Amino acid sequence: MPLRLDSRQADFDTAFAALLASKRETSVEVGDTVAAIIADVRARGDEAVAELTNKFDKAGVTPETLAFSETEIDAAVARVSPEVMAALETAHQRIKAHHEKQKPQDHIYQDALGVTLGTRWTAIEAVGIYVPGGLASYPSSVLMNAVPAKVAGVDRIAMVVPTPNGQYAAAILAAARIAGVTEIYRIGGAQAVAALAYGTQSIPRVDKVIGPGNAYVAAAKRQVFGQVGIDMIAGPSEVLVIADGSANPAWVAADLIAQAEHGMGAQSILVTTEKGLADAVVAEVDRQLALLPKQEIAREGWEEFGAVITVASLDEAVPLANRIASEHIELALDDPQQLLPRIRNAGAIFLGHHTPEAIGDYVGGSNHVLPTARSARFASGLGVLDFVKRTSILGCDPTSLAALSQAAITLAEVEALDGHGRSISIRLNR
Amino acid sequence: MPLRLDSRQADFDTAFAALLASKRETSVEVGDTVAAIIADVRARGDEAVAELTNKFDKAGVTPETLAFSETEIDAAVARVSPEVMAALETAHQRIKAHHEKQKPQDHIYQDALGVTLGTRWTAIEAVGIYVPGGLASYPSSVLMNAVPAKVAGVDRIAMVVPTPNGQYAAAILAAARIAGVTEIYRIGGAQAVAALAYGTQSIPRVDKVIGPGNAYVAAAKRQVFGQVGIDMIAGPSEVLVIADGSANPAWVAADLIAQAEHGMGAQSILVTTEKGLADAVVAEVDRQLALLPKQEIAREGWEEFGAVITVASLDEAVPLANRIASEHIELALDDPQQLLPRIRNAGAIFLGHHTPEAIGDYVGGSNHVLPTARSARFASGLGVLDFVKRTSILGCDPTSLAALSQAAITLAEVEALDGHGRSISIRLNR
Repeated sequence: MPLRLDSRQADFDTAFAALLASKRETSVEVGDTVAAIIADVRARGDEAVAELTNKFDKAGVTPETLAFSETEIDAAVARVSPEVMAALETAHQRIKAHHEKQKPQDHIYQDALGVTLGTRWTAIEAVGIYVPGGLASYPSSVLMNAVPAKVAGVDRIAMVVPTPNGQYAAAILAAARIAGVTEIYRIGGAQAVAALAYGTQSIPRVDKVIGPGNAYVAAAKRQVFGQVGIDMIAGPSEVLVIADGSANPAWVAADLIAQAEHGMGAQSILVTTEKGLADAVVAEVDRQLALLPKQEIAREGWEEFGAVITVASLDEAVPLANRIASEHIELALDDPQQLLPRIRNAGAIFLGHHTPEAIGDYVGGSNHVLPTARSARFASGLGVLDFVKRTSILGCDPTSLAALSQAAITLAEVEALDGHGRSISIRLNR
Repeated sequence: MPLRLDSRQADFDTAFAALLASKRETSVEVGDTVAAIIADVRARGDEAVAELTNKFDKAGVTPETLAFSETEIDAAVARVSPEVMAALETAHQRIKAHHEKQKPQDHIYQDALGVTLGTRWTAIEAVGIYVPGGLASYPSSVLMNAVPAKVAGVDRIAMVVPTPNGQYAAAILAAARIAGVTEIYRIGGAQAVAALAYGTQSIPRVDKVIGPGNAYVAAAKRQVFGQVGIDMIAGPSEVLVIADGSANPAWVAADLIAQAEHGMGAQSILVTTEKGLADAVVAEVDRQLALLPKQEIAREGWEEFGAVITVASLDEAVPLANRIASEHIELALDDPQQLLPRIRNAGAIFLGHHTPEAIGDYVGGSNHVLPTARSARFASGLGVLDFVKRTSILGCDPTSLAALSQAAITLAEVEALDGHGRSISIRLNR
């Protein structure tokens, strides 16, 4: 059974705080192991990468076969069914169209003093995308990571994907080709992150490493941060459904199950004003789980991490939602716009009864890489802005420099940076 | 003597690569110490923070006096001279005016299928700013960190500043008040970062921690990343001056010295087409250093990390600049616009002979918190975007859901996520 709470129960605040604080991941301390792997890859390059890949993945690679060849990629693409290729193309086109609208504009202007001020955006030159192999190997995630980079204008998009026992999903390579990935390496783990961050003989270094992975990958990203940029550290996925009496319990149940089937700590929470709906959804989840081919993961996730919270009004749901700061929020309401402006912390918000979160996972057009584990309090989903950087532009002429000089020199004095003050004053009396 | 290179010398590529690879910071391994401090603060809260603050800073605090009182802040502000207050006000007004232009716009639209798609921006609720105490305690940095947060709409801006032996600069508190900082704590080090990230009895937790600090602060930020957001890990500061024959050697020398006087690995590099200018600048640096009250730090930095590179043409300077990816680039040219579009990696670019970098440190209006240590390849300076986050909005009606359903269900099948597919198909046949 999932946790059941009611905002009118006496100990609700304590119980809700405990729900927020509950850990859904076992943290494994792998920092030292990862540091050793990174040092090895930096010292020995391809040799170390191939050795570690064969040790951990039994992938049977040599320093010469770390990269997939064009022939191998062609062959993989040929194995993907026309139906799947069409679905990938549809998803690609929609994701691309939406992300095109995220491209930031340069803005350079002169202020009243005649100072030129501005912001100029340029694309990162080279990005590495980590794609997990095995169980959670998702071609949709290849599109979601690579397309914004391509739209931003990144020159090199290098992908790494481990191939345990030499196995890989053809659709992963097909998605990479559709998205414009420029190179694909059959490597994973901390060794792949190290190779991308520092480069090897056959893998040129990149400027930023993104994409989810296990504890070793997460630790490696944390350690190479600074040498390269990284995206957020991905945690377990989660959905919060806010429903009133207009919601269909079977649909809500299906959405809660869709989230729970990710496993690995994924969490589904329902907040509703209707006790009757809450009961109906709980019964529906049970009924639908029994019909799901692989029901164990979803059932386990639902029973261990699921929660159903009854509240007195939708107004009460808002502060709870903002504290949960969920990766996904579904507003299963006839009038979602009524709540939308008041929800401050969310990775993505899905409006109304006909927008299951899963449509956003694939073909909605928005990105499915979103902040997890309450990080929507401070972080955003992946987008074009993650693949560009901003350069400030400043320009004075003799008049505007003179107008600004006194305040600047005063502050340089306060900070005991005489050289700073002199670099200004030396220009004043020619 | 600084390093002298010429792009026409036989071993230039090797020598330039060595310059890029040279470390300017001694990395101290403090991860375990910091982990213990964070655990202590999480376990014991204010007690631990006060104890550690008295141990490291000899600050004489109790759990009750961690925060500066309004009376103390009033008294500090009263000690700041009217001239300095006016300079801080000028800087504040200019920084605020420029950052107002960085506020991102929401964009919600319907596509051809009738799908609602969009991006909505909201401010982070609470931010913590780390301000170093002692030597590098800069009121200008308080403004540069706090003003973008305030402009973004952050509700709580908490500042921490260590007070070694109880000492602090009044101008720091004055800058905090001008910028709209809501609370100030006399704490520093890893314990301050832990208190901000996890909260204590008297210090409410924040959602993001920013600001530069020593190795302990940097390690603590790395470790709390995920619990809260962080900004980049600040490294030694740097300037690259690109000059042709139109440059004034005395002005260029003054700018190279201004950078070098930061010490702690700060680097000044001149790239010029004119051998004569290079020689004149080197001589001028010597002459001006002798006139600087505190010349030791600047001289040491210049001699250990400074470099003067002669190139055959400005065209040759461009790829070098993009590889250096300097925090600051000055274009000491009559026609800076000629080079500007080709410089891809830079934190900030200063145009022409009358824009010394120091004017941007204080009153230009752009932010002086900029990516260091070659991270301008992938990172941006601090701005309003660092204090807001983006929520994706997605909305389908029955028609657009039906139009998208087949591709989504196909991809869910490929990914073996049956629950995802069912959350869509269940809505199709009512």
